[in-house]
Amino acid sequence: MGFFRIFLFMSLVSISVCQENLNPDLPRPLIIELQESIEPQLRESVEELKLQCGSWRLAVETNNLSPWKTIPEECADYVKEYIMGRAYGMDLERVSNEAGLYAKSVELKEDGKDVWVFDVDETLLSNLPYYAEHGYGLEVFDSVAFDKWVDKGSAPAIESSLKFYEGVLSLGFKVFLLTGRSEEQRSVTVENLISAGFQNWDKLVLRGFEDHGKTATLYKSEKRSRMVEGGFRILGNSGDQWSDLLGSSMSIRSFKLPNPMYYIP
Amino acid sequence: MGFFRIFLFMSLVSISVCQENLNPDLPRPLIIELQESIEPQLRESVEELKLQCGSWRLAVETNNLSPWKTIPEECADYVKEYIMGRAYGMDLERVSNEAGLYAKSVELKEDGKDVWVFDVDETLLSNLPYYAEHGYGLEVFDSVAFDKWVDKGSAPAIESSLKFYEGVLSLGFKVFLLTGRSEEQRSVTVENLISAGFQNWDKLVLRGFEDHGKTATLYKSEKRSRMVEGGFRILGNSGDQWSDLLGSSMSIRSFKLPNPMYYIP
Repeated sequence: MGFFRIFLFMSLVSISVCQENLNPDLPRPLIIELQESIEPQLRESVEELKLQCGSWRLAVETNNLSPWKTIPEECADYVKEYIMGRAYGMDLERVSNEAGLYAKSVELKEDGKDVWVFDVDETLLSNLPYYAEHGYGLEVFDSVAFDKWVDKGSAPAIESSLKFYEGVLSLGFKVFLLTGRSEEQRSVTVENLISAGFQNWDKLVLRGFEDHGKTATLYKSEKRSRMVEGGFRILGNSGDQWSDLLGSSMSIRSFKLPNPMYYIP
Repeated sequence: MGFFRIFLFMSLVSISVCQENLNPDLPRPLIIELQESIEPQLRESVEELKLQCGSWRLAVETNNLSPWKTIPEECADYVKEYIMGRAYGMDLERVSNEAGLYAKSVELKEDGKDVWVFDVDETLLSNLPYYAEHGYGLEVFDSVAFDKWVDKGSAPAIESSLKFYEGVLSLGFKVFLLTGRSEEQRSVTVENLISAGFQNWDKLVLRGFEDHGKTATLYKSEKRSRMVEGGFRILGNSGDQWSDLLGSSMSIRSFKLPNPMYYIP
């Protein structure tokens, strides 16, 4: 793809720039001439790459991409900058604000059957400390290493989500947590959630033995259907994956948190 | 909101810069001093606004926003630049490419019941000539003026969508067009589609008398349900609005084309 050519071009440019820096004896006018001819091209390539990676990220967030295993290599810096800069936090906050406006706008019945469903990872808890060590999605997912990280129980809260979570509870919603984590991780998940500040959920649903091998879309749809069969009304659903939100027994409104680091089908 | 303060700040900055330009008699060092102090702040404000508007656009494209009538005033330039620059075209092209990969990957049955559903406006046909005259979404939707534009029948094709449309037909899909336009606009819509290069669709469904007043989500869901009742399998669906894609009888896969200019519930 075109990405690769840009990547190659930029590598060559950076090599040639480095070589110039290693040659302090070159007459000064030559350096200026070289920089003048390289800089606009370099800037253009950086802009082009930003544009391409921005377009890739939009495709991720709108669920247009086919299942993918890692972020494009040439977008590694772009994704890191997005996550570690202000944009990711700003996007997360906006989701909670919009969800909050909706949550306040709906009238709850008196029967305690109005539910908000939350995913856990990258929705309530942040695994950034883990992903920072693994290239922000550049490495193929390693379930052994990730489970080790989960077992530490030290994932911090996404602050804007915690605030929204507390708001939802205070409005009188029942809160159901529906996670792709396995039943064996229940106690460490409970401990982690509590130490991160989450309390008073009504249900924590994890993958049981019978759910292994199912796609997240199917597993979560089945669990939502069971909630609906139990008489609950799913008014809101928050998740960072479309597989948290789509399928059967969908919520009245769904809120997609940003996540350009990984994809779960 | 914070937007407004930035907007105000930038207006003041641009006024002060203009006033400087109107004063050619000022001693030169003073101008330089002023520019040096303003430029970093100005650049920062421009960056901040870009970040905020980018975050707003992501919320639009992921369907997180509450129904909205116009784009935020402070994002007018941002949206215009997005649409008229390379990003919009690049995003459109990526949707068609991804949809094309999926379309090629599915195996069609021999019974001619495999369907791809397309929306029309901002999916196959582009109303950019109209929206360019109306602030790219900055003005409240004016159905009388828009219908006048539609009646001209001169909306151009979105080129990447036309190419994809032809690919879908050549793979053997049946193509159903499902538009929010009204039945009275049938003949002008047919003429416009044909003159823009679209041919050989199997059905063109428009809003009948009984559909007026329904949300697009409900109207399109009902029409899709009727397709399914007719034995058709909706394997793909392309639309620029989430109301083209969500609801009942949803497609196996949906493709969301970008559109930061307007929202249809």
